[in-house]
Amino acid sequence: MLEKTTRVNYLYDFYHPLLTEKQRSYMSLYYLDDHSLGEIAEEYEVSRQAVYDNIRRTEAMLEEYEEKLGLFEKFQKRTKIMETMKQLVDSSPTVSKELVSLVDELEKVD
Amino acid sequence: MLEKTTRVNYLYDFYHPLLTEKQRSYMSLYYLDDHSLGEIAEEYEVSRQAVYDNIRRTEAMLEEYEEKLGLFEKFQKRTKIMETMKQLVDSSPTVSKELVSLVDELEKVD
Repeated sequence: MLEKTTRVNYLYDFYHPLLTEKQRSYMSLYYLDDHSLGEIAEEYEVSRQAVYDNIRRTEAMLEEYEEKLGLFEKFQKRTKIMETMKQLVDSSPTVSKELVSLVDELEKVD
Repeated sequence: MLEKTTRVNYLYDFYHPLLTEKQRSYMSLYYLDDHSLGEIAEEYEVSRQAVYDNIRRTEAMLEEYEEKLGLFEKFQKRTKIMETMKQLVDSSPTVSKELVSLVDELEKVD
């Protein structure tokens, strides 16, 4: 369950600009602010079921975007390579400071 | 004009999985295979104007995706950093082979 939540959070992070404002509100209240379905339903004056359906549909959309663009997968690959790179750079006394700062810069692009 | 074409080609590269099959066909015939609007219209048995409108709309969609996700912009930033990184790595005799291959690996992720 926790792993699923983490995945949804990442996908939300990458693809939320493609969602509607309502989808973003529900998702961010539910996943980021940890509100219950009932609380969101009350706030928006809709049924709990409507909130539930909207969130499930949004999750499916996020997975579909990931299937098409694979931004999370690429991010994971890049992160893994960068970690090895940083270890290597940190443990080598001969590596130039410039290279260290380039690795840092690269990390900030995502 | 050439610069615009290059930009559209890049945007197409990043976002084509989000387009419909017809949009992809028109775009790839027009931009990648250099067919004329008239030739595409003939092949699909639609008016030249219909093809033109579809391509213009698709270009606008690609720009909208770029505005939201910025994949091309991030790619350019990453490429620039990586180029400096490669020059630095190539010109330093003390840099380990592992680091060189990590830079190569990173380049392949995009």
